[in-house]
Parts: sequence; structure tokens; C-alpha cells
Amino acid sequence: MAVDIEKANQQVVERMMEARPVVVGVGKARDVIPGMKDNLLLHAGPPITWDRMAGPVKGAAYGALIFEGMAKDDKEAQALIESGKIEFAPCHHYGSAGPMAGLMSPSMMVYIVEDKVSGRKCFSGLNEGRGKVLRMGAYSPDVIAKLKWMNDVLGPTLDAALKDCGGIDLRALLGKALHMADDGHNRLDAASILYTTQLAPSIVKTAKDTNTAAEVIKFLGDNALSILNPVMAGCKAMCDAGHGVEGSTIVTVMARNGTDFGIRVSGLGDRWFTGPAGKVKALYFPGFTEKDANPDIGDSVITETAGIGGFAMATAPAIVTFIGGVAKDAINTTLDMYEICYTEHKYFTIPFLDFRGTPTGIDIRKVVEKGILPRVNTGVAHKDPGVGQVGAGVVTPPANIFEDALVAFAEKYGYA
Amino acid sequence: MAVDIEKANQQVVERMMEARPVVVGVGKARDVIPGMKDNLLLHAGPPITWDRMAGPVKGAAYGALIFEGMAKDDKEAQALIESGKIEFAPCHHYGSAGPMAGLMSPSMMVYIVEDKVSGRKCFSGLNEGRGKVLRMGAYSPDVIAKLKWMNDVLGPTLDAALKDCGGIDLRALLGKALHMADDGHNRLDAASILYTTQLAPSIVKTAKDTNTAAEVIKFLGDNALSILNPVMAGCKAMCDAGHGVEGSTIVTVMARNGTDFGIRVSGLGDRWFTGPAGKVKALYFPGFTEKDANPDIGDSVITETAGIGGFAMATAPAIVTFIGGVAKDAINTTLDMYEICYTEHKYFTIPFLDFRGTPTGIDIRKVVEKGILPRVNTGVAHKDPGVGQVGAGVVTPPANIFEDALVAFAEKYGYA
Repeated sequence: MAVDIEKANQQVVERMMEARPVVVGVGKARDVIPGMKDNLLLHAGPPITWDRMAGPVKGAAYGALIFEGMAKDDKEAQALIESGKIEFAPCHHYGSAGPMAGLMSPSMMVYIVEDKVSGRKCFSGLNEGRGKVLRMGAYSPDVIAKLKWMNDVLGPTLDAALKDCGGIDLRALLGKALHMADDGHNRLDAASILYTTQLAPSIVKTAKDTNTAAEVIKFLGDNALSILNPVMAGCKAMCDAGHGVEGSTIVTVMARNGTDFGIRVSGLGDRWFTGPAGKVKALYFPGFTEKDANPDIGDSVITETAGIGGFAMATAPAIVTFIGGVAKDAINTTLDMYEICYTEHKYFTIPFLDFRGTPTGIDIRKVVEKGILPRVNTGVAHKDPGVGQVGAGVVTPPANIFEDALVAFAEKYGYA
Repeated sequence: MAVDIEKANQQVVERMMEARPVVVGVGKARDVIPGMKDNLLLHAGPPITWDRMAGPVKGAAYGALIFEGMAKDDKEAQALIESGKIEFAPCHHYGSAGPMAGLMSPSMMVYIVEDKVSGRKCFSGLNEGRGKVLRMGAYSPDVIAKLKWMNDVLGPTLDAALKDCGGIDLRALLGKALHMADDGHNRLDAASILYTTQLAPSIVKTAKDTNTAAEVIKFLGDNALSILNPVMAGCKAMCDAGHGVEGSTIVTVMARNGTDFGIRVSGLGDRWFTGPAGKVKALYFPGFTEKDANPDIGDSVITETAGIGGFAMATAPAIVTFIGGVAKDAINTTLDMYEICYTEHKYFTIPFLDFRGTPTGIDIRKVVEKGILPRVNTGVAHKDPGVGQVGAGVVTPPANIFEDALVAFAEKYGYA
């Protein structure tokens, strides 16, 4: 079977780079995500059954059901889930991407990101900031109270402002942020204040009152991860633009649910290739050690899949204070990633490498041939439900998933 | 005479680094700058007479007199100046620092920056943004109209917001911005949006109405040099903190008026050492060449004097798109500056050099001994009054001023 892999891959990376995701609004998951159901909880990573779910995902599921008013505490939530009345599905099956546990429930306000090239819409929740948060598996009353404020105040205010300003172009914003020492995943300090600054005039004009405007601007400006969720939905839109091209060996999804690490490949349809989620090499917050750490978790690795995050670390030397290492590691990581990527990004460039494009489009052939695994920067959640973040660091996917995908590719396209 | 130069220099750099300048408010120059007079125009650089003044300073002086209502056009302004009724003095003689022409007139709103350690107050005008602006020597009606808006709307709004939020800590903000790929002089993209983001909630709360709040936030957020002027006043406060220490060979002022480049040295009192302002090695805007360029001009080199700007270029590789060169030059420039500086900054650090402090405290002994001149990043103004900016690039001071200062030092302290 004469499939032209090079041509297919070229098409995939072109589509990924030419996608132009714009944050256009905020709405309730049940109203805006096609197929969302009242008893459905979306989670990060590949599909997984309740019995194998990681602590932080369980904790976030409890929190989501409490938030929804479907349970009054974790015990009720657990009973409800074990009764079989609640369905679970990966965010990725619903055009979405969620950080860490990635929990999205029907009433939650979510960002709507539209790819202006294809019209494709992708989704992600509102970012809660750092500390004790649902995405890290925490579900105490303060966590739920913040989610309610986000739904009642933050979400509607953002929606009005986004509509007033005509949306925020994520590709343009990320291009700028990479020149301001963000990696686009764990370090979004610049992107988050660019976002805040661009939105603020519209927030002022459209918020229901002055106090709300000031409160929302402060919340966005104080949170260095404000823009993480729309960035993830934007990267999802870019990667989806490249998905489903026959004969392509480019990875279009990487995601972890805290138990398994899964990938999808453009030319291999919707099949997941999974292996065990890795242990994160991390800097821990005071009072925590690696014994507390859940394995690698979250959909945020969609940023690396799109050519930023760990792949763009050469733009972000200051990130080493957060995830460990020295500045030289940041450069070397990016240089390594060129070895396994198909191209260099047109719009995401690295000043320190004289504006060379970021490594983009992971090629499963190169990963297997060179024995170099994608590098991921990530936060670390406590392994038990209800605790929260304990550190941050670096991790790689299990090698077998690239090997398995390559075998499947060979079988499908007749190279076996 | 047994002066302990090392001890003196150590004291100077400690004082410079420990100064903590905070932007506390905005007021009219005549109300807030001690000694400001109704017929006094402050300008950048060392003292200069009208006949030797550079085109951009003349243009800015015309504009200032038109803005003050003291002349209706450039001809009237010129006649008024030549009548001898207008006095000129360096910004630096009035605790101030002004970018490019540096013109400050009595009615202009200026930033008040207070060093919380010494209580010293320093001043700088409000930044006009890029393009056709007074500081580049332009004085057309649109330039004057913008100055009026800045005085009537921007200034009072900023003053109220700064008071509401308790002021903006410049040292903390700059430390963060240097980790976000700013150099602190020509590249202030991050610092300006950090400033906007920190001020925005207070602007929303205190502005006279919603439209004003939105307009001011947008003006600040869209201008990548919004914070240049308060940064300059802040660096002036840091440098002044180190000035006047007997026996010190550290430079505490560098400044250019477009004709002369002048320095002052901590241990040599208020004497200026001057030489010809250099030709800037620049990237020119379309339609302009080096024939259009005025020599080096402005007080903004106070940033390099304080240990940022050109000295911190290793933090800001993206600046090469603005001033020319390749990324490696940015690193090398910073490495060179360590050769002529007394210390490494405690609070301003460079991620790419594994958080080494920026080169701080230019030592005239080292400049002369090593033959390495301070590196300055700068904008370039048209040489004729009324035109504006024509490019940006790099420049060094004339070597003689360091030699002259060293000779004066030797004479004063008995080494001759």
C-alpha cells in the first residue's frame, strides 16, 4: 500500500500551524459542548473505569457532584458514582481538554475556543488559580465556593467581555508570550497578563458593576495560569486540525488520567495507545515528598503536542525555579525535541535560538528510532482525593505507547 | 590621602541596590518638583546652551511652550526662547530623568517616585507611546492634543489609582520583568503590562467614569513603554542613593542631551564630565537612514547606570529584532558589562545565566583599564525639530569622559 507518509505529515503540521484558535466566549458545558449530558463527567486523559481512577480524579469527581448539587458530600458522591448512574468520558472525546484531573461537569462554565480556519470549537473550564483547587483533586467547601463564584460572576463577565472585544487570538498571543519567557504550559505569566490586559477594557465596559469589573480583573491578573485553560482548548483545536490524515505518523493527542498515559496518532483514527503514567521528577512544596505524588496527570500535555510547553522550554529559562534544573537544561530540552518532531513552527519562535521555530509535530517513527521521549512540564497532584497540588516537575510518557502505535501503523498501512 | 575606594564603592552599590523606589502618584511639575519655575524647561542630559541644543530638544521645547500656552507656534516659541525669558536646566538637576529630549515643563503632569528607604522623591513625565511624540522632537497639533489628554485625563486617573493601591514597587516589578525577557530600558513589554495589570483594578475603582477607566487601561496596555518613565525615575532614585560617597569611583549618572554625553561619579560631587554624543548603530524605520539620525540622546541611560537596560540584555534576546544583531550578542553584551561593573545585582537576576545578578555599578577605573565602554540600548530621534523617531539601536559613550573623570578623581584624592 503506497501511502506517502511525508506528504501526509506535511499536511498535518501545516494544518496544525495554520489553525487560528480564538477565545470567543464562555458558556455552560451542557449548553455549549455537543453531546454533553446531565449525568456525564468529563475527565483528563484516555478512557478509564472508576475502579482504576486516580485519587485526584476521584476527588475532583466528588467535588463536581457536590458543585452540581447531586451529592452533599464525598460519601454521597461516591455512592452515586458506584450506583452506576454517573457516566465518565475523556474530555478529548468531547473536543475538550482539562488540566490535571480535568473534571468538567454539565453546569460548569467553560471557555469556547473557535478555530477560525475550520470553524471547529473546543472547550476547557475556567482556571481556578493555584493552591487548593478541584483540578488537583481538592473538594473542600472553599473549593466549591470558588467554583460557584467562577460560575456566577467570573464566567458571565468573561463571556460579555470576550464578545465585546471580538475574541482573543490565542496563536498571536502565544507567539508574543513565547518572546516573553513563557513556555506556554507551566509558565504562562506573560500570556496571562497579556490576556488580562487585552480583556480589561472590555470587562470595564460590560461588567455589571464597577466592583465586579475590578474583582474579575484582579482575579485574572493575580493568577499566572489564568490563560492555561483557553490555551489548552486552543492547542486542542490546533491538534484536531491535524487529526485524521491518512498515512500520517504525527501524534495529535497526548493525555494522562493519572493512571494511564495515552496518545492518538493522526493516521490511526480515534484509537488510544496507552501505558502507565510516569512518576514526575519534581520539586515538592514544603511538607510533601514523592511518596505523596500521584503519577503524571492531565490534558495539559496537549500544549507539548502542539509544539509549546516542554518543547519550547528554551524560551523560558526562569521555569527552572518551578520545575528544577539549570538554564542550560531548558535549551537542551528544546534541542532534543527537534530530534523527534517533524517541523519547526511558523508562528511560535524562540528568541534565544535566533527565532528558530519551536519543535512541532511529534513523529512516532522518530521517537522510536531515536529513543527520545517527548518532554513534559507538569504540576503534581497529591495521590489522595481532597488534598491538592504538592509540587511541579518534568516527566516523559511510557515508551511502549509509541512502539505500539508504530506497530499499529505498520499493520494498517501494510508495512508489517 | 588614604581613601578606601573599595569600601566606598561597596557602600555605593549597596545603597543603589537597597533603594526601593515606589511609584506613589502623579502631579503637576510646578507643584511637585522642588525648585520648578514657571519659565523653566527641563531637558535630558548634561547642561547645554540653546545655540548648541540638538534638533529634537529644540522641537520638544517648542512643543512644550505651545502646550503651556506661552507660544502659539514654533516661531513664537523660538522668539520667546531667544528673548532670554526661558530658562533651561537638566532634568538631573531637579531629581528627574526624561526619555530622549526629556522635556518637562511646569504644567506637565509627572510621575512621583519615592524611595522608601531614603524618602527621596524623583520625577519623570507620562509616557506618550511610540510614533510622533514630543520626546522625539515632534510638536504638531496631534502631539500637543495628546499631551493635553495626558494632563487632563491620564494623569489624574493614574494619580487616584496609584493612591488607591498604595503605589507600585518598581524594584519588585522590574525583577519580575527581567524574568519575562525585558531588558528594563528599550524592551519593557512585560513591565508595562505588569504595571497595567497591577493598576487596573484601582483604575476601575477610582476613575471618574467607566469610559475613562477603559480608555486609560487600554492606553497603558497598548503601549509597551508605558512604564519607561517611572522606571527611569526609579533608576534615578537608585543611583542618587549611591551618589556623593567620598572616595567612590562608581558612575551615578549617565545622560545625553543629543549633543553631549555626560556622566557624574559618586565621589566627585555634582561635576559633569562630558564628550560628544555618539552616532547610534541602528535599525532605521522605512524611509529613514543614518543621515536623518540625531546623535545619542536622553536620560534613559540611567537604566544602564542602575544595572539594567543594555547591561541586562542577556534577559531579553527578543530585543535584537528592535535594535539589530543576533541573540548571542545579547548574552555577550551582559558578559562584557561584568568586566566594568563593581558588583552583581541582588534583586535583578538573569535566568539564562542561572540567575546571576545583572552587572551593577560602573567603575570608571575598570572602564579605563579594560577599554570597555558601557553599552546602551536606545531609540533614535530625527536630527531636525518636529519629525520624531527614525529608528533604534546601540551606542556607547565617548571614552574621554571616563578618562577625564579618573584624572579628576586622582587629583581630588591625591593619586596624581
